[in-house]
Amino acid sequence: MHRYDLLRDINDPSDLRKLPIEKLPQVCHEIRDYIIDTLSNVGGHFASNLGAVELTVAIHYAFNTPEDRLIWDVGHQTYPHKILTNRKTKLNTVRKFGGISGFPKREESEYDLYNTGHAGTSISQLLGEAVSRDMTGGKYHCLAVIGDASIACGMALEALNHGGHIKPDCLVILNDNFMSISKNIGSISTYLNNIISSHIYNKYKRYYYTFLKWFPLIGPAMFSLSRRLERLFKVFWIPGGLFEDLGFRYIGPVDGHNVIELVQLLTKLKNEEGPLLFHVLTQKGKGYSHAENDPIKYHGVTPFHKESGTMNKDEKISFSQIVGDTLIRIVDQNKKIAVITPAMIEGSGLKEFSEKFPDNLFDVGIAEQHCVTFASGLLGGGVAPFVAIYSTFMTRALDQMVHDVSLMNLPVRFIIDRAGVVGPDGETHQGLFDLGYLTSLPNMNVYIPSDPQNLVDSIYFMEKFTEGPIAIRFPKDSADRNDFTYDRSDNRIEFGKSKLLKKGNDITLICAGAVVAIGLEIVEILKQKKISVNLIDLQWLRPLDTEMLNRELSLTKKFMILDESYLDSGLSGYILNRLDPKNLSRFIKTVAFPPEIIPHGSKNEIFKLYGFTSEQISELIEKEFKN
Amino acid sequence: MHRYDLLRDINDPSDLRKLPIEKLPQVCHEIRDYIIDTLSNVGGHFASNLGAVELTVAIHYAFNTPEDRLIWDVGHQTYPHKILTNRKTKLNTVRKFGGISGFPKREESEYDLYNTGHAGTSISQLLGEAVSRDMTGGKYHCLAVIGDASIACGMALEALNHGGHIKPDCLVILNDNFMSISKNIGSISTYLNNIISSHIYNKYKRYYYTFLKWFPLIGPAMFSLSRRLERLFKVFWIPGGLFEDLGFRYIGPVDGHNVIELVQLLTKLKNEEGPLLFHVLTQKGKGYSHAENDPIKYHGVTPFHKESGTMNKDEKISFSQIVGDTLIRIVDQNKKIAVITPAMIEGSGLKEFSEKFPDNLFDVGIAEQHCVTFASGLLGGGVAPFVAIYSTFMTRALDQMVHDVSLMNLPVRFIIDRAGVVGPDGETHQGLFDLGYLTSLPNMNVYIPSDPQNLVDSIYFMEKFTEGPIAIRFPKDSADRNDFTYDRSDNRIEFGKSKLLKKGNDITLICAGAVVAIGLEIVEILKQKKISVNLIDLQWLRPLDTEMLNRELSLTKKFMILDESYLDSGLSGYILNRLDPKNLSRFIKTVAFPPEIIPHGSKNEIFKLYGFTSEQISELIEKEFKN
Repeated sequence: MHRYDLLRDINDPSDLRKLPIEKLPQVCHEIRDYIIDTLSNVGGHFASNLGAVELTVAIHYAFNTPEDRLIWDVGHQTYPHKILTNRKTKLNTVRKFGGISGFPKREESEYDLYNTGHAGTSISQLLGEAVSRDMTGGKYHCLAVIGDASIACGMALEALNHGGHIKPDCLVILNDNFMSISKNIGSISTYLNNIISSHIYNKYKRYYYTFLKWFPLIGPAMFSLSRRLERLFKVFWIPGGLFEDLGFRYIGPVDGHNVIELVQLLTKLKNEEGPLLFHVLTQKGKGYSHAENDPIKYHGVTPFHKESGTMNKDEKISFSQIVGDTLIRIVDQNKKIAVITPAMIEGSGLKEFSEKFPDNLFDVGIAEQHCVTFASGLLGGGVAPFVAIYSTFMTRALDQMVHDVSLMNLPVRFIIDRAGVVGPDGETHQGLFDLGYLTSLPNMNVYIPSDPQNLVDSIYFMEKFTEGPIAIRFPKDSADRNDFTYDRSDNRIEFGKSKLLKKGNDITLICAGAVVAIGLEIVEILKQKKISVNLIDLQWLRPLDTEMLNRELSLTKKFMILDESYLDSGLSGYILNRLDPKNLSRFIKTVAFPPEIIPHGSKNEIFKLYGFTSEQISELIEKEFKN
Repeated sequence: MHRYDLLRDINDPSDLRKLPIEKLPQVCHEIRDYIIDTLSNVGGHFASNLGAVELTVAIHYAFNTPEDRLIWDVGHQTYPHKILTNRKTKLNTVRKFGGISGFPKREESEYDLYNTGHAGTSISQLLGEAVSRDMTGGKYHCLAVIGDASIACGMALEALNHGGHIKPDCLVILNDNFMSISKNIGSISTYLNNIISSHIYNKYKRYYYTFLKWFPLIGPAMFSLSRRLERLFKVFWIPGGLFEDLGFRYIGPVDGHNVIELVQLLTKLKNEEGPLLFHVLTQKGKGYSHAENDPIKYHGVTPFHKESGTMNKDEKISFSQIVGDTLIRIVDQNKKIAVITPAMIEGSGLKEFSEKFPDNLFDVGIAEQHCVTFASGLLGGGVAPFVAIYSTFMTRALDQMVHDVSLMNLPVRFIIDRAGVVGPDGETHQGLFDLGYLTSLPNMNVYIPSDPQNLVDSIYFMEKFTEGPIAIRFPKDSADRNDFTYDRSDNRIEFGKSKLLKKGNDITLICAGAVVAIGLEIVEILKQKKISVNLIDLQWLRPLDTEMLNRELSLTKKFMILDESYLDSGLSGYILNRLDPKNLSRFIKTVAFPPEIIPHGSKNEIFKLYGFTSEQISELIEKEFKN
């Protein structure tokens, strides 16, 4: 392990702070190597972590963590932080069941103040921390690191607006790598790019001093303006006027890979008063050429070959890509379609779509609220909007679904990806809430495809559906390319009808979506035990096929609901309230997730942990029939 | 009706546009009189509507509505708009059951494009409309009117960020009356105030020209900068640099009560390209001195005496005020408490609190997302946060409740006001969702006070409760001051325990909150019919007193749940999933609101409309027992 001469002895930031400053570049080098070594074996968030190495080292060196309060946003850039804070040897367990989280996690370390998987939260937390310190007489520093995409989130902008008003001492470090997961979007991004373009930054710098030299010639009337002008010029050449307008002092931009300069600047900033915004430029994938060249591909990696950078290619096609491919076929025929994504072109399978139909794709940035309401506005001129969004981020826009879509019965189409258990991303990304709020929305129609063909068909169905808002939800999964066709057929989906997949006499299982596959396994397992299962694939949750449900329930002795949701934000309460009360006496229970934190791990591991496998559920049913 | 010489003949904007421009001041005068005449009789949103008269007239005169698409945000400033668009004679029905809405409403008029009660939605809708027009080859104008508080909403800022990037032709009119419902908060507000302060605006205007005159003296090197400097100076003296940085061309500020100038400017702006922000200064309450002097008091009015301005004073105390008064008593003893409100100091009964303890009150503006996460950050230094918020606005922050509070089990205290049916504000403000999502949040504790004493006690309880997040919810209501005491007693609330209010044998009614009063009436009504009712006041929803519920249900023949929520976002699904299935055979039904648009009207009228009165429910139960 001679490659890690310094890192070997660093277990927490106090070890780091014992080193002389000139050793820090080597520490950074070793951390970068360690990340490449480890992640090439186990996978994880990659490019952003390589970009954050120097910044992380400089912060822990300049500040007295954990007494000084350090907040990370978004959390996937914290692997160097984890390495420096007692978790070096656990990095190879990252995102695995039982291993460390891919995001900051309070339960892991006192250095992690907040569990953060969603973006844009840090400035609010920072202001809270700073105000709280001042209310209680604390004497420490509060700082947050936020990405250039995160800072354009509505809630981050709300926080800047508030922070510039109340002005506590605090430091926002803008880690600007010119790119979020997708390419950055929005005028703030353009604004940051303007700042850092050497054209503006350097060209006029020398003119400023020439100008100052000539200044006395202008005349006495101008003298009083000197200070104001100075600020103006600073805004112009050493810009940041946007942040200054919002009440934050702007410092930057500086090279985020010069660790010694970073330490020196951060040390200076500790003595400054009021809210500061420190603009640091970093490069995603820094130090690993394959990732530098294609940071989007290397945003998150599976194990890869260290020299060639090659990752295993999945022969299957992801559900997200199936959606993207179907949308390509739709827009190919109908240009009055818009697909809107909140910064998830790649994740939502829309890369090829965006290249083929750039005029029909709107990436609004990490701005879920605006995303939904913007979609509703598109209807005004006769454009049909599809919102492609992850379940876990949809909660950011609940109010807009209620107020700007459902209450007006506007036919916005929601394509909700990553529904149910998400696997390695874990607790902050679980898609376990959507069915609960979808069923509570007036006018909302909800379809839950249970196989890839249903998925394709439902996208086609939504195109033609104009009666009101409609949503589909499906898990992070993939399919064999032979298992479905993109051929359009308008009769494979029947509005509001559920399907009886297996006829049985003992117990009815009500299932939907991915859970139907578990239901099919249960049928087979219980057949061995002489228990005959009646299996319903709901397909439509709204409208609910109440007639069919009541009929089928009345024909079996018992029934059970299986739902890949939180118990109290799923489909069971909704269904129970709509069944004939006579049938309720046959109810055994709902198998769903309890209102707990559902951790990371593979889907199978998580399902097993919560008694959600076909074996576990079959056992439960068997017991019921023995009693 | 001779006072309305011109208004008499104006039924829609085409009538307005037939008048010569010099008649417009008189039209404005008549509209203002008409509003004062009408609202002094029937009440409604007042001060903001008086402020928007000239702007509304100018817009409908300069633009070809409804072909040109006009969007309002927030909607309570649309009474002049309603007067000009076929609803003049219905203004006296505003906010009454069956009358016109206090907000824009599509069902009322083709001139109302969106139903808007929540703030900050318009720029998203505007961009959608403009993009949609361009995708479909439309040739009309798209414009939105947004208030100075609304434009600081996170979603409005998200929309500015997107709009400045995609740059469609569209016009944002910032109706800046220096004040939202509460006093305006935030650096954007300060920024706008700086723009309009004559100190900056006028003082340096003449220096600009002096400077330009002297300019040649500075030397050739500076010449190339001339254009850039010009923009800089424009930003400085005729400011708006913040909006220019966000990609919007800024025009303003202009006097929003000079209707002729407004028409001329708006007409010019019709020919400009790209996204524009037009900054218009108006005065809340303009033309009615009492409202000009106290616009907050006259934001919304009950019927008042036209000359003296006096409104009837309610002898009762509002639930909101009870909360505010209790918080005063708490902070009086404990300074490590913070109360956070998203722009609702007055509505949340915090006026006196804010004057007594300004350091303990944080008004974050219309920024619910930041509000919740900021509160969570306050815990960092040991401050206990109370978030005072309306149920209908809480949905804006669901993601923050999940991600930044519940998943970390942080003891943020939520005081959820205006829960249930809200009355005159109607469909966009109904508080019918909160119990659904509150019960779905991991770690969240939920208490539902059913009388004023419970309310007081629950606030005291929350102060001491540090085990995790906790929420209470209560309706817009008021109480006799003799019906409760502020004396602290720590034993009036028992954690996790429900109360059996009446013992009966036939039917158990499960109630919570305001509905308990209906339950008590039902007990009396059914006593006459020889049906004996077992009445449960849940008190705690989380944790649920399952043991008590199952025991009581097993002792009666039937049970029913009464819930002032949407059926599918209330407490019934949550409870049904937790009961002993044996008891479910006794279930009759849940009385709750169906997933429809619940309109405005008095609470009694709305309850009657949905079968929620004690008489209607009693009848239903009686039938059940006859069968």
